[in-house]
Amino acid sequence: MRIPILTLTTDFGLSDHYVGTMKGVILSICPKAQIVDISHEAGPFEITEGAYLIAQAYRYFPPKTVHVVVVDPGVGTARRPILMEAAGQYFVAPDNGVLSMIYTREESRIRLISNEKYFLHPVSRTFHGRDIFSPVGAHIAAGALPSRMGKRIEDYLRPAFQKPHRAGKRTWSGRILKIDRFGNIITNFHSDDFPDLEKRNFAMVIGPQETSVLARTYAECSPGELFVIVGSSGYLEVSVSQGSAAKKIGCESGALAELLLW
Amino acid sequence: MRIPILTLTTDFGLSDHYVGTMKGVILSICPKAQIVDISHEAGPFEITEGAYLIAQAYRYFPPKTVHVVVVDPGVGTARRPILMEAAGQYFVAPDNGVLSMIYTREESRIRLISNEKYFLHPVSRTFHGRDIFSPVGAHIAAGALPSRMGKRIEDYLRPAFQKPHRAGKRTWSGRILKIDRFGNIITNFHSDDFPDLEKRNFAMVIGPQETSVLARTYAECSPGELFVIVGSSGYLEVSVSQGSAAKKIGCESGALAELLLW
Amino acid sequence: MRIPILTLTTDFGLSDHYVGTMKGVILSICPKAQIVDISHEAGPFEITEGAYLIAQAYRYFPPKTVHVVVVDPGVGTARRPILMEAAGQYFVAPDNGVLSMIYTREESRIRLISNEKYFLHPVSRTFHGRDIFSPVGAHIAAGALPSRMGKRIEDYLRPAFQKPHRAGKRTWSGRILKIDRFGNIITNFHSDDFPDLEKRNFAMVIGPQETSVLARTYAECSPGELFVIVGSSGYLEVSVSQGSAAKKIGCESGALAELLLW
Repeated sequence: MRIPILTLTTDFGLSDHYVGTMKGVILSICPKAQIVDISHEAGPFEITEGAYLIAQAYRYFPPKTVHVVVVDPGVGTARRPILMEAAGQYFVAPDNGVLSMIYTREESRIRLISNEKYFLHPVSRTFHGRDIFSPVGAHIAAGALPSRMGKRIEDYLRPAFQKPHRAGKRTWSGRILKIDRFGNIITNFHSDDFPDLEKRNFAMVIGPQETSVLARTYAECSPGELFVIVGSSGYLEVSVSQGSAAKKIGCESGALAELLLW
Repeated sequence: MRIPILTLTTDFGLSDHYVGTMKGVILSICPKAQIVDISHEAGPFEITEGAYLIAQAYRYFPPKTVHVVVVDPGVGTARRPILMEAAGQYFVAPDNGVLSMIYTREESRIRLISNEKYFLHPVSRTFHGRDIFSPVGAHIAAGALPSRMGKRIEDYLRPAFQKPHRAGKRTWSGRILKIDRFGNIITNFHSDDFPDLEKRNFAMVIGPQETSVLARTYAECSPGELFVIVGSSGYLEVSVSQGSAAKKIGCESGALAELLLW
Repeated sequence: MRIPILTLTTDFGLSDHYVGTMKGVILSICPKAQIVDISHEAGPFEITEGAYLIAQAYRYFPPKTVHVVVVDPGVGTARRPILMEAAGQYFVAPDNGVLSMIYTREESRIRLISNEKYFLHPVSRTFHGRDIFSPVGAHIAAGALPSRMGKRIEDYLRPAFQKPHRAGKRTWSGRILKIDRFGNIITNFHSDDFPDLEKRNFAMVIGPQETSVLARTYAECSPGELFVIVGSSGYLEVSVSQGSAAKKIGCESGALAELLLW
């Protein structure tokens, strides 16, 4: 028999009881669920970071996995809960763009979650992760049909998807999507869009620093030397061997990154 | 067949092997157990914080869940291990008050854990989470009868339960129970005890700051404005829209909070 | 039916999607796996710390548990992936010494992992945790024979195993293996090698501080007093009652610790 898998991606951190409580709700509804934490350390209210985390991870999960994503600064307001079917999996989240890095890439079918039968009652105004997103996700994992949750909608939020734009003849202007634990700087330059970097002259400029070195592994450059590498994310990353590139440059998530090509 | 669920709440953090080792002990005894982390980030030795975390979470778990709670500054001393049955669930913990926010609220039956047959031997003097609490919890999860663990006791620790007290005609004196990841300040004023706040004049005073605003959602006030909200915890919380109230005020867990009503 | 158990020990932290992604890979191959986190907070690139964490935890897991250990500064270079059988369990890791605290203690059989059939393709150059170690571990957990992974080797890395050495007639020179969350200083003096400390005169010297007190529990000394205790790790630890010994002394993992005996 298939074991239902349900993942959690939030900005709740691990120091409170919030994540544990959501798991209690899930197991009360779907006791056989395998629950997997993607990350709970998205920056508080950082929708883009949540979007990046789930967009990186979902592909590695089996069909029918249910992903519950709760980065939800608008909790309690009119922002709507949605259920998305895409890539053979399910995604439950607020309609605030946190799923946008998936639905701009995959064919998707999105429903408004309106059937309160699947909520935990009374629904609080401050913790829909517990009262709406977890129970809905658990019911889907337990076999409830998506169509039971609510009607299909087309007017879900389509945030300006942060792709680099051409800023000059030789210049592309992009952004830092995420700085990972090792201090690797993950830009939004996707290697598919800049495929032939090793055959060209280039410079990646972040803040006061730049590098024109393209490495294939973290270990091949000298300690302290900045380089660009095609990361496991598929994006161009700026790194330093056995050190933190972000600390060396002094940059943060969201900051500008410029790519010069000639 | 029912899947046994066992939760862990500790002050062990996640940087050491302690939590992983406890899970190994549990799975060696009860291989089918679903293990759920409530939190391992209670402040080191902070019994009140551990008490708050498990008291917030347990209600959301299915009947017969076993909760292992290890915030245990007295490990190795004469303080006793106890097993509590309450609300159709089981709780394994040191007798130091860490379960007090549950047994002051629920009907409970408490036993001294004395049957060393259920311990891991040799029992260390410094890690009863591994050697006593985890194996006892796992045996209960696997179906051992509570009565096998030891005799019922009535003289378990009853710490002064931190409820607000009346400090003047219009003044209640309370405390900060916890500051959560978002900087929300969770006080020990329970909304059940102060139910009609929206119909009254009030001020919540913490340190040099006060607020008389009662909000229903995080998003309805202006950025930077302090407000009181009935949190998902059931307690009055002091918050700031998309910011940290605790940072704004500069306060810490355990500090005073005053509620003026007139 | 036996439930396969697979543990993870890495330096990936929990703020990125890396650990969640590994779990997706594992569950895609072995959907019944119980996955247990030992710790993901080994210091970045700190092989010794990873070695310590897994060496402390593995003994508490059931036979046939698969331990995946990824502290891997050499990812993408010629360093080899290995599969070890020891103590009735399996270990999958890079050949960089991260398993050395186990294979110097247990009889072991080590194989080079070379059968790319068990890898995730394409194999990235920067995330072998996802592309090699997780899938190989999951296939072993699902029942694949170790011999299918590759040939036995004897020339695996044997790092200078950090044991204390005699530095003078009365002096042993050792090191700090790890500072735990509570600030306990775990040295590499194993209590088995220094068994009769309570019958002898001794002093443990770390940095500018020393102590000649041997305690049996954390709670028996006065607050602020440094003492030596045989920790749950089996090593001599330097502690302070309800405080951080590491903060009091101002020392770090890797620093010198001297034991004087007379």
